[in-house]
Amino acid sequence: MARRRASQFLAGYCCSKSRSVVRRPPLCSQEPASISAPGLSHTHGKATSMFKPPLKLHWKLSSQTSCDIMQVHYSRTYGIHQRSFTSAAINIQRNPSFSKLNSDDICYFKSMLGDKNVVQDEDRLSAANVDWMRKYKGSSQLLLLPRNTEEVSKILRHCNSRRLAIVPQGGKTGLVGGSVPVYDEVIISLASMDKIISLDKGISPFTIQHSSFSVNGILICEAGCILENLNSFLANEGFIMPLDLGAKGSCQIGGNVSTNAGGLHFIRYGSLHGNILGLEVVLADGTVLDMLGTLRKDNTGYDLKHLFIGSEGSLGIVTKVSILTPPKLLSTNLALLACKDFLSCQKLLLEAKRELGEVISAFEFMDSGSMDMVLAHMDGVRNPFQSSLYDFYVLIETTGSDESYDKAKLEAFLLRSMEGGLILDGAVAQDINQASSFWQIREGMSEATVKAGAVYKYDLSLPVENFYDIVGEMRARLGEKAKVVGYGHLGDGNLHLNILTTQYDNNILAQIEPFVYEWTSTHRGSISAEHGLGLMKADKIHYSKSPETVQLMASIKKLLDPNGILNPYKVLPQSMLQ
Amino acid sequence: MARRRASQFLAGYCCSKSRSVVRRPPLCSQEPASISAPGLSHTHGKATSMFKPPLKLHWKLSSQTSCDIMQVHYSRTYGIHQRSFTSAAINIQRNPSFSKLNSDDICYFKSMLGDKNVVQDEDRLSAANVDWMRKYKGSSQLLLLPRNTEEVSKILRHCNSRRLAIVPQGGKTGLVGGSVPVYDEVIISLASMDKIISLDKGISPFTIQHSSFSVNGILICEAGCILENLNSFLANEGFIMPLDLGAKGSCQIGGNVSTNAGGLHFIRYGSLHGNILGLEVVLADGTVLDMLGTLRKDNTGYDLKHLFIGSEGSLGIVTKVSILTPPKLLSTNLALLACKDFLSCQKLLLEAKRELGEVISAFEFMDSGSMDMVLAHMDGVRNPFQSSLYDFYVLIETTGSDESYDKAKLEAFLLRSMEGGLILDGAVAQDINQASSFWQIREGMSEATVKAGAVYKYDLSLPVENFYDIVGEMRARLGEKAKVVGYGHLGDGNLHLNILTTQYDNNILAQIEPFVYEWTSTHRGSISAEHGLGLMKADKIHYSKSPETVQLMASIKKLLDPNGILNPYKVLPQSMLQ
Repeated sequence: MARRRASQFLAGYCCSKSRSVVRRPPLCSQEPASISAPGLSHTHGKATSMFKPPLKLHWKLSSQTSCDIMQVHYSRTYGIHQRSFTSAAINIQRNPSFSKLNSDDICYFKSMLGDKNVVQDEDRLSAANVDWMRKYKGSSQLLLLPRNTEEVSKILRHCNSRRLAIVPQGGKTGLVGGSVPVYDEVIISLASMDKIISLDKGISPFTIQHSSFSVNGILICEAGCILENLNSFLANEGFIMPLDLGAKGSCQIGGNVSTNAGGLHFIRYGSLHGNILGLEVVLADGTVLDMLGTLRKDNTGYDLKHLFIGSEGSLGIVTKVSILTPPKLLSTNLALLACKDFLSCQKLLLEAKRELGEVISAFEFMDSGSMDMVLAHMDGVRNPFQSSLYDFYVLIETTGSDESYDKAKLEAFLLRSMEGGLILDGAVAQDINQASSFWQIREGMSEATVKAGAVYKYDLSLPVENFYDIVGEMRARLGEKAKVVGYGHLGDGNLHLNILTTQYDNNILAQIEPFVYEWTSTHRGSISAEHGLGLMKADKIHYSKSPETVQLMASIKKLLDPNGILNPYKVLPQSMLQ
Repeated sequence: MARRRASQFLAGYCCSKSRSVVRRPPLCSQEPASISAPGLSHTHGKATSMFKPPLKLHWKLSSQTSCDIMQVHYSRTYGIHQRSFTSAAINIQRNPSFSKLNSDDICYFKSMLGDKNVVQDEDRLSAANVDWMRKYKGSSQLLLLPRNTEEVSKILRHCNSRRLAIVPQGGKTGLVGGSVPVYDEVIISLASMDKIISLDKGISPFTIQHSSFSVNGILICEAGCILENLNSFLANEGFIMPLDLGAKGSCQIGGNVSTNAGGLHFIRYGSLHGNILGLEVVLADGTVLDMLGTLRKDNTGYDLKHLFIGSEGSLGIVTKVSILTPPKLLSTNLALLACKDFLSCQKLLLEAKRELGEVISAFEFMDSGSMDMVLAHMDGVRNPFQSSLYDFYVLIETTGSDESYDKAKLEAFLLRSMEGGLILDGAVAQDINQASSFWQIREGMSEATVKAGAVYKYDLSLPVENFYDIVGEMRARLGEKAKVVGYGHLGDGNLHLNILTTQYDNNILAQIEPFVYEWTSTHRGSISAEHGLGLMKADKIHYSKSPETVQLMASIKKLLDPNGILNPYKVLPQSMLQ
């Protein structure tokens, strides 16, 4: 680990890796010239590759999403602190208008999908009924594995005519109970629909200096493709996915779209609403909506694909995705920095936006408690600094097209920030292993909280100036009863507030909720920044949306899914849909 | 004008301007060191500021949108070649379910808005009834000028209850007849709602080196704000609007949102779907939908604002806008380049995306005929090259945070491109005047086509590899009867196809349409990239959207506007709404 004291850490980092197809040799030599920082001592760092590794450990269940593998993993890792929010616990009654599954339904599905794609095995069903945290648990008796859009369409047409409720299921990495049944909904897994259909690479081959670069980067794939697999595929073609999240090894692109996933690179590439070019969606009645455009601009009528981005499978099932993928740029740099207070983190963000502007690709934030937790509970994660913990940490990644310039930009920025007192200590990744270990710290947070005990998780969007206040207020409120930590995407104003206790306790919950929602609403924040509402917060939507807006949502839900069979009990309050 | 032959043009450009608030002196001196291009002779260019000027000439009618000013301008400039597509010409019958305006309606509006905001003056109505090109002309008897959301709400509540059709009107700079009445729709102008409500600048002031930089850049304003005025306001605060278009001097942000305007910086900042954070919208029945969020991330329920982005005022009237504005970066460079063929332009785009990646902010394209036309018809526009015309031109703008690095990046890119034979000739703007003159060429195109004669305008989204083929095919099809030119946003695959004739002729039109739509559909393009469908292409939507998708659009239109009073006859085929 390349870790240096404040007076040293800026010297001698170089963190770029050339892609497999390059036109010129990497500018970054094995022993780069040291960088002169006025008044600072110098060291030379070893310069090797520093791309984030293709495999991440955390949240990664398996690149296969088969339910039995998950189950084994669950029981090994998360067997201690569980609270299953079955339907009884969440105080929602089964919608009496839904039918119960019968043998004719099973026969129909088997005739259409084949026996092996109609799963009634108890173990596999058990795994598919429970979420990643073992917090939400349904009692579905049927898991279907369609292989193509036509089969999804036939399933929905049948279920709609029979009033059988369904839940679409992707990688099941959500945190709000959106992807598992509440009662006996039929589970429709998209795992078998994992084909990459095309990558529009634009004109090729070219004869200027290199031969296989491509320009458009428009990827079309099926909804069941795992995010990490897509990224690996794209990397070989000179592109990257515009989103990256800790769950990349399990989450599916259809689920990413349906939950409008944010993640680590949101600050650079923005929302999926800006990156998704087209979708294929199957509506509740089986109608296939072909909106699978591949154009950056298309102003012909209402842009309906946006209705399905973030609607958590309650308006239709996403079956294919067309997405604009950015070029994989030549140089990446990663710095882990320690700050003395939250205001310094804020200032650092402000400075980074101004000075690193177009190359900044991540700006992540962790407090002392978060760091402590991940060091304690995640195997192989080490403190990058020799000292004890600092109060606050920031992880800054830059990605650009020219490594010498980008490196110099980051260097100048870090120098100024250190001289200005914003940074107490820091380390810049020297190679792919160090970069990986930095990312492991940040990406291991969510899993560490689950391992650490009973955890209440909140995903808040807040104005940057109020970003960390809720952590202090919650600590004051809960006292010794709980450990309150905060981390998240400071660059996007997205705080992951985690409240850890020894065991789940309704008295503690009553001290947290509705306070956390009211506080967020008062500060004009959002009670779900990037996780969605799912089952957890379906009846909390009014904290973030006006009554008229929620009413229109309900009207649209009724228009698109008049029988209410799609992912029931989620997203919107049940009272508005009956 | 800094214009050099191919062997010279790379030397000595420097094109950045420091903002009024800077932390260090500009790196760019008045006489920068010349840049060595191996094997090339060198010259030294004068280096001064090069931001695009705050005022642009083209499309700019006035910073006031008052109708009488427009009318004078129209009659002076565009008096020669007109075809008014009145309702008779476009073969649409007035919807018989709409009421006719009566004296009680006028009384109500006067009591609510005051006499001066209820316009019945013939001249002002005449101007408000006709579009910028004088191509579309309605016969409205009433122009209303609400001053706030509540008044818009009351107007719509009244009109909906009386079944009075309305057309919302912004800067009226559209090209598809979307913003003027077809029959006697009441015109609701947003021109009086032009207040900037807030700019969330984040934490300030700071004590590190500078004091007034801000970080968030979230602008909230009323829908009637003129784009250029917003940009001027933001420039003083260190931000820019994420969109820029030739019509900036007249177009209003509400119209930009309602038409999902694209423009010159789309390649950098992307679609408004990615930049708009929130909207306030008044529905047909007067309901005010408060979706005026200011958060980058908010996954609480369906993201309904997207329904109103690009729906051309047919689902609701946008009254307030919350938009994420990017930081105004320190350095801007602008190069006008000549290429020998379209393939070279394509290759140049590919190279620019790879090599300039994160700093590229515009990649515009013009063919020889476009350049010829703008030189012939626009006052003050000069050929930047001494030679006669080249076949193709590309305008590349870069914007970054560090002028020395960014300049070097562009320099290296241009050197390589020239050595590789992609560029025949080029000029790099040396100061703000030269930059302005380059932009005048590109931004003057649309007005030049109108001045040049009768023009058929098409706004196509096409795969880059087919981008220019339609120009050749159309030339072959029309022969001597018309001049066919192409220009547009190559970086986004958006071609503006312009067909110029001496006068409008239905025989020529029959040779153009439906061929141009069929061709576009065959090549998986869009018949409206950034202009919308409006009246011009409402019944052409099926060339770009599937029947099921259009059907759902119609269902949503009926849900939100059951009486169909909002901007009737536009966007969707009338046959689907009755």
